[in-house]
Amino acid sequence: MIIEAAQAGKHIFCEKPIDFSIDRIQAALDAVEKAGVKLQIGFNRRFDHNFKRVRELIQNGEIGDVQIVNVISRDPAPPPIEYVKVSGGLFLDMTIHDFDMVRYLTGSEVTEVYTNAGVLVDERIGEAGDVDTALISLKFQNGAIGTIDNCRQAVFGYDQRVEVLGSKGGITVTNDIPTNVVLSTDSAVIAGKPKYFFLERYLESYEAEMKEFFRCILNDTEPVVSGIDGLKPVLIGLAAQESCRTGKPVKLEG
Amino acid sequence: MIIEAAQAGKHIFCEKPIDFSIDRIQAALDAVEKAGVKLQIGFNRRFDHNFKRVRELIQNGEIGDVQIVNVISRDPAPPPIEYVKVSGGLFLDMTIHDFDMVRYLTGSEVTEVYTNAGVLVDERIGEAGDVDTALISLKFQNGAIGTIDNCRQAVFGYDQRVEVLGSKGGITVTNDIPTNVVLSTDSAVIAGKPKYFFLERYLESYEAEMKEFFRCILNDTEPVVSGIDGLKPVLIGLAAQESCRTGKPVKLEG
Amino acid sequence: MIIEAAQAGKHIFCEKPIDFSIDRIQAALDAVEKAGVKLQIGFNRRFDHNFKRVRELIQNGEIGDVQIVNVISRDPAPPPIEYVKVSGGLFLDMTIHDFDMVRYLTGSEVTEVYTNAGVLVDERIGEAGDVDTALISLKFQNGAIGTIDNCRQAVFGYDQRVEVLGSKGGITVTNDIPTNVVLSTDSAVIAGKPKYFFLERYLESYEAEMKEFFRCILNDTEPVVSGIDGLKPVLIGLAAQESCRTGKPVKLEG
Amino acid sequence: MIIEAAQAGKHIFCEKPIDFSIDRIQAALDAVEKAGVKLQIGFNRRFDHNFKRVRELIQNGEIGDVQIVNVISRDPAPPPIEYVKVSGGLFLDMTIHDFDMVRYLTGSEVTEVYTNAGVLVDERIGEAGDVDTALISLKFQNGAIGTIDNCRQAVFGYDQRVEVLGSKGGITVTNDIPTNVVLSTDSAVIAGKPKYFFLERYLESYEAEMKEFFRCILNDTEPVVSGIDGLKPVLIGLAAQESCRTGKPVKLEG
Repeated sequence: MIIEAAQAGKHIFCEKPIDFSIDRIQAALDAVEKAGVKLQIGFNRRFDHNFKRVRELIQNGEIGDVQIVNVISRDPAPPPIEYVKVSGGLFLDMTIHDFDMVRYLTGSEVTEVYTNAGVLVDERIGEAGDVDTALISLKFQNGAIGTIDNCRQAVFGYDQRVEVLGSKGGITVTNDIPTNVVLSTDSAVIAGKPKYFFLERYLESYEAEMKEFFRCILNDTEPVVSGIDGLKPVLIGLAAQESCRTGKPVKLEG
Repeated sequence: MIIEAAQAGKHIFCEKPIDFSIDRIQAALDAVEKAGVKLQIGFNRRFDHNFKRVRELIQNGEIGDVQIVNVISRDPAPPPIEYVKVSGGLFLDMTIHDFDMVRYLTGSEVTEVYTNAGVLVDERIGEAGDVDTALISLKFQNGAIGTIDNCRQAVFGYDQRVEVLGSKGGITVTNDIPTNVVLSTDSAVIAGKPKYFFLERYLESYEAEMKEFFRCILNDTEPVVSGIDGLKPVLIGLAAQESCRTGKPVKLEG
Repeated sequence: MIIEAAQAGKHIFCEKPIDFSIDRIQAALDAVEKAGVKLQIGFNRRFDHNFKRVRELIQNGEIGDVQIVNVISRDPAPPPIEYVKVSGGLFLDMTIHDFDMVRYLTGSEVTEVYTNAGVLVDERIGEAGDVDTALISLKFQNGAIGTIDNCRQAVFGYDQRVEVLGSKGGITVTNDIPTNVVLSTDSAVIAGKPKYFFLERYLESYEAEMKEFFRCILNDTEPVVSGIDGLKPVLIGLAAQESCRTGKPVKLEG
Repeated sequence: MIIEAAQAGKHIFCEKPIDFSIDRIQAALDAVEKAGVKLQIGFNRRFDHNFKRVRELIQNGEIGDVQIVNVISRDPAPPPIEYVKVSGGLFLDMTIHDFDMVRYLTGSEVTEVYTNAGVLVDERIGEAGDVDTALISLKFQNGAIGTIDNCRQAVFGYDQRVEVLGSKGGITVTNDIPTNVVLSTDSAVIAGKPKYFFLERYLESYEAEMKEFFRCILNDTEPVVSGIDGLKPVLIGLAAQESCRTGKPVKLEG
């Protein structure tokens, strides 16, 4: 579809992942380049108020050199098994957002991936050939290291946080909550649970990425989430899959 | 304008305060009643996600009987002196929202007001005959007591909080902040300031009150913020003014 | 006992309130002065880590001129009725700490008191001639205003907080909690309740005030909580009682 | 020294690590067993108020089965290079506490270790043959997975937190801070930094572990941190070293 649209001279907004095949992604990117149209990939979380602010602080040098980046990204409940079977698996349908996030926050490329994963939530996910819980250890070109912490189920709601440690400081992001109301009773002090899932949590970021897409067309500028930004997370995801299968770290070209 | 609109058979949405004169307010409410049109008053904060939740918890009995209600309501910066001169003064242009809030939260009427106020922010406000900082002590028909804490200037941003103590628990509300990002450096742990002012803080509540106005017209139901809800806070505001002038508590009919 | 101890040349540490009678307090202070012994009053909360830090920030000018000071001071449960009958009442046994706190934080004297109080927790307290819930509105010599919020019962635990608004900033203090552990489940996000009562909350401040007492004897310096600091809160407490009885504000000499 | 003390019939409290050599540790444990004396190892963090509470919640089933455990453990500043050269290295002098913590929290043994580490703080640490920043990925016998996040330098203070995700909920622990005072100014909302280092943060846990040691002697019960609890973290630490050297995950017998 990207190739057809590019050939028709249309600007393209494409959800992630572009494809599970690197060859097919590359063909799409080539067609886009040849046609001179714009391609923006749907990594909406870059437009989230919290994560945008984290990147700003890092780029402003507020924490010095990035040493450790940790992304916690857990869904409130697993998807239907039918979806799991065709989604490309945890690393390509879910972690792919987090692979983009670590590139976005560190401004650096991943050079090595080690996956520590298991089936801890739902056995049917294992039967479908996937894992549901994963800790992915990363090395970056700039020397930083990091972890992505995924689970298909956090019963308290959508758990979407990042932490960054740098040479001059650290940054943490807690979950967005629907209200700031705290109820104290004789048995507990009770705060709001995180917003339930991606529609509640990321609504504004979907609007913002669309506005950005229109802006780059109107102003004839480069999309801030480009074709290469769509390719790289798939490469990392395939490496994470391989590491999960072999139990060994996998190197990337960076 | 309310009277004219009512006579023309139009439903009416009116910002607060309806008027500074009780007689004129009463005449407007009479015209509305006679015409059988709907009148909703713009106490938008009732539609705020935090305060709506506080009211729900109270009405659900989560904290038992309300004993103390405290409203903190401070602006980031004083308005222009030209506005102060015609606004009706602190109690009728600013505290009026808080008088509505305590009625909304307690579900009870104010029976006595004592005002402890001063000019602590800007002398020109005093020269214009107004105060800029006030602690208003309230008694309610149901036995509860409360305080409203106002200041024309909180340099850190719009300070909009409530606390309620009840026989079975307590409720607190902290300020809404633009992001949940926390930066830790060698000198400080730094969180976001509150949203700057009412446009940032209450944007969604303005939308929600409009939707509610349309809903009550479409469904032919009673407005949730009625004409009497517009009258009562003005009565309390005038009592607060009198208390401020005389230095003595002032009783209300409730 | 103070007079006897002073006459015997002993340094004296005395719990609050020194007495309910101003004459008797004055006689005690006179005896202390005549004997040249040291007298420290047991306002331990001045030695609390949180409140000491608030005072430091104020004295360092971090918030500019103090405009509003709010003290929230609520017990987890009412004392036995037998104690209520002889304690001197809410204002002299409980609020007296808060009268000291506002003097300590503002560095200014109270010039007017208005009490808004009721019996909302336990009818037997009313039968014993006392109130159990009070909002006390204060004016200070330096122009600041304030509120003390007292209740004999906050079912979630000892509620001990202060807030100060100044011309250049604001300060808040939340309750101390036994652990920083937060439990998130599918129904709630649950944090620890405040430390239960004064022994848990103020243990370290009791130790610190004793050390300070010994230090001022060993170094022959003035006690940081002096006889006059014992007298003033009783004067404010008696004014609060009078305001509670008459329903009117009561002036103090400052 | 353990062997000599055991032979002399003395009960023994030993700081961690017992030794860097498994054979020497085993010889010490054998001597203790033969002599029938008690041996308690100085894993003081088990006695910390926060972490003890986390373990209680897990053991009470509040979060169901443990799926992910994350330990963040960072020092405020690197130790002197002379110490680094003889300390046994990051994994045996610093992470060893965290290896104990994950065993304590999960109640399960580590079966595989992968180390992702670098020299990001101080080149002299690298020259001394050690790393200063590490993310250690762990597998546990009960199926759980986890990460330990270490750095020799967090400029904002001692960063000591844990997070646990389970099938029925999650637990987080934030840092202990010296006061709950928050200062809001026109430029920032500023909270207290974490307690500076282990003496401030863990003072009470050192007292508690000593009390526990005396209690187990007086009551003739088993030490809650036994010889095997001293041995296991050294085994994990040596595996982490090997993984760091080879770049591959290392299995443990569990």
